[in-house]
Amino acid sequence: MNPVVSLSSLGEFGLIDQIRARFPQPVAPELGIGDDAALLSPSAGSQVVVSTDLLAEGVHFDLGFGPARLLGRKSLAVNLSDIASMGAVPRWFFLSLAIPAGFSLETIEGFLDGLAEQAAEHNCILAGGDTCGSKGGLTVSVTIMGEQRPDLILKRSGAKPGDEVWVSGSLGDSALGLKLLMEGARLGCADDPLLLRQLDPIPRCDLGLKLAEAGLLHAMIDISDGLLADLGHICEQSGCGAEVLLGQLPLTPAFQSYCSKQPVFPWPLALSGGEDYELCFTAPAGNHAAIQQLAKTAGIQVTVIGKVTNSRQVHVILPDGTNFQPSASGYTHF
Amino acid sequence: MNPVVSLSSLGEFGLIDQIRARFPQPVAPELGIGDDAALLSPSAGSQVVVSTDLLAEGVHFDLGFGPARLLGRKSLAVNLSDIASMGAVPRWFFLSLAIPAGFSLETIEGFLDGLAEQAAEHNCILAGGDTCGSKGGLTVSVTIMGEQRPDLILKRSGAKPGDEVWVSGSLGDSALGLKLLMEGARLGCADDPLLLRQLDPIPRCDLGLKLAEAGLLHAMIDISDGLLADLGHICEQSGCGAEVLLGQLPLTPAFQSYCSKQPVFPWPLALSGGEDYELCFTAPAGNHAAIQQLAKTAGIQVTVIGKVTNSRQVHVILPDGTNFQPSASGYTHF
Repeated sequence: MNPVVSLSSLGEFGLIDQIRARFPQPVAPELGIGDDAALLSPSAGSQVVVSTDLLAEGVHFDLGFGPARLLGRKSLAVNLSDIASMGAVPRWFFLSLAIPAGFSLETIEGFLDGLAEQAAEHNCILAGGDTCGSKGGLTVSVTIMGEQRPDLILKRSGAKPGDEVWVSGSLGDSALGLKLLMEGARLGCADDPLLLRQLDPIPRCDLGLKLAEAGLLHAMIDISDGLLADLGHICEQSGCGAEVLLGQLPLTPAFQSYCSKQPVFPWPLALSGGEDYELCFTAPAGNHAAIQQLAKTAGIQVTVIGKVTNSRQVHVILPDGTNFQPSASGYTHF
Repeated sequence: MNPVVSLSSLGEFGLIDQIRARFPQPVAPELGIGDDAALLSPSAGSQVVVSTDLLAEGVHFDLGFGPARLLGRKSLAVNLSDIASMGAVPRWFFLSLAIPAGFSLETIEGFLDGLAEQAAEHNCILAGGDTCGSKGGLTVSVTIMGEQRPDLILKRSGAKPGDEVWVSGSLGDSALGLKLLMEGARLGCADDPLLLRQLDPIPRCDLGLKLAEAGLLHAMIDISDGLLADLGHICEQSGCGAEVLLGQLPLTPAFQSYCSKQPVFPWPLALSGGEDYELCFTAPAGNHAAIQQLAKTAGIQVTVIGKVTNSRQVHVILPDGTNFQPSASGYTHF
């Protein structure tokens, strides 16, 4: 750690060395950091799955909300979640950083440490990238590549009317955590479990892979834009609709405790808050028991929250059977 | 064109539609824009070559220097140049954009038009990406993937003492063009050829591919950081040095005309100005005639500028045989 050293004393190649030091490099003849491009050899018969996410300071993250290490973890987690949602195995990633002049080296080191932790936890290899200055804030771009047999890959487009709609884990904690952070809460308080769902989301890689390899599902997506928006993507690309039972949404005790104290229960946090990084998937009802069993082996709770319908819309149904009208559906950037 | 429409009226998914409309999509079963990740199937026996470049407003580009269309062209060109330098075939690319609030739609459309032009010229398919807001300037991140047979791929590490050092095209125009732009020159003047080398560089994809497939070379790199820095990378990774003959550097008449009017000939523009996006490669002297012939069929001039040596340094030699001491070696971001 060099608490008061600025990036300018390190230089571009010094920064690349800092990055290289934290990540195991691919085994020859694959090329990692240090040539014009990375060389990657997918196994015969596999398909390369690629995703990219851009995180911009002041838009996706606020460095005041928590340690840079967690931002590093999250930068890869959001990409891992995309790979999980396809049922693929994460393999390589590429990191691009635009860093403001005078940025603290300690922050960058913390960021890289967290990124390296997350990479090691998922056996995902840093294979290249780019670094440059920024006149605005810190900008992080990660491109991830995974692999899977073409016939096992899960897309958004396979849902069928009658399918059960499932979600992993719980919904709304991340959006509530962001709300609390914006209201001034910081780590080290009773709300830590909620804040950490926002600052350090856990991608459901193991569950996504197991579900895909078991061949039990018709469609899958990760919930980054909010349940209704992302389930909407499945419906749109599958040419169907869905009914979501409000009373079935999996909510943590911490979420319920906070929300039941509000004048109006803030359902939009769970329905459209986003950044849950849970998996939403559809499957024939006949696979219900097998899915429950498989999720148990992965150690992740999964819950049926509704069903796929013939309509072209996503409806949220109240316990009395009437339609709930959510006030917003997903985060929009512009 | 919607000259006065702001991005906020378009929305995130509207922007994705704008992007989708400009780029041909991969043929099924490959997935392009619109799922969590792209699916790409390299041919059997080929290796995937991946590169990524981040371009930040105020650092890599100034939107006042030229039309956004040229920025779009350049954003892909710098990535294509990396693929060219490996001797690979460009196949797919991923685009991430962080866009400031209130940014003009016309600028984004121009950018996308230029990007689509460059993609079409190189049969490179847009396969995914990410868009978001930015609190700083416009940030563009492109990740490109190419393919080549593993035994044909050219790395930085293969140079051998005695090799001739070659460069394609000419050096220094781009750095001089940037200098003129920073001094206020704009397109539509006598200096257009120089300005365009900076604003609209031409990646040497055809030449790089032909050279690799002919098996004539030992090592190759593209000149993005400047000749001395990039030739230095070849030497470092090959465990050798190089002598560059100052009198042999290929310079355009426009470059020579400008530079010979200066009090001191600005050699650093050609030696270390950077952004030439020419290829620098080394090859056994016995392949000289075959390389010249092949470059002729690609329609690109190539020039021997020196040789690989046993030393571990890059020396620049003046016509009188003495060492030239350049004042800078490459661009540094921090």
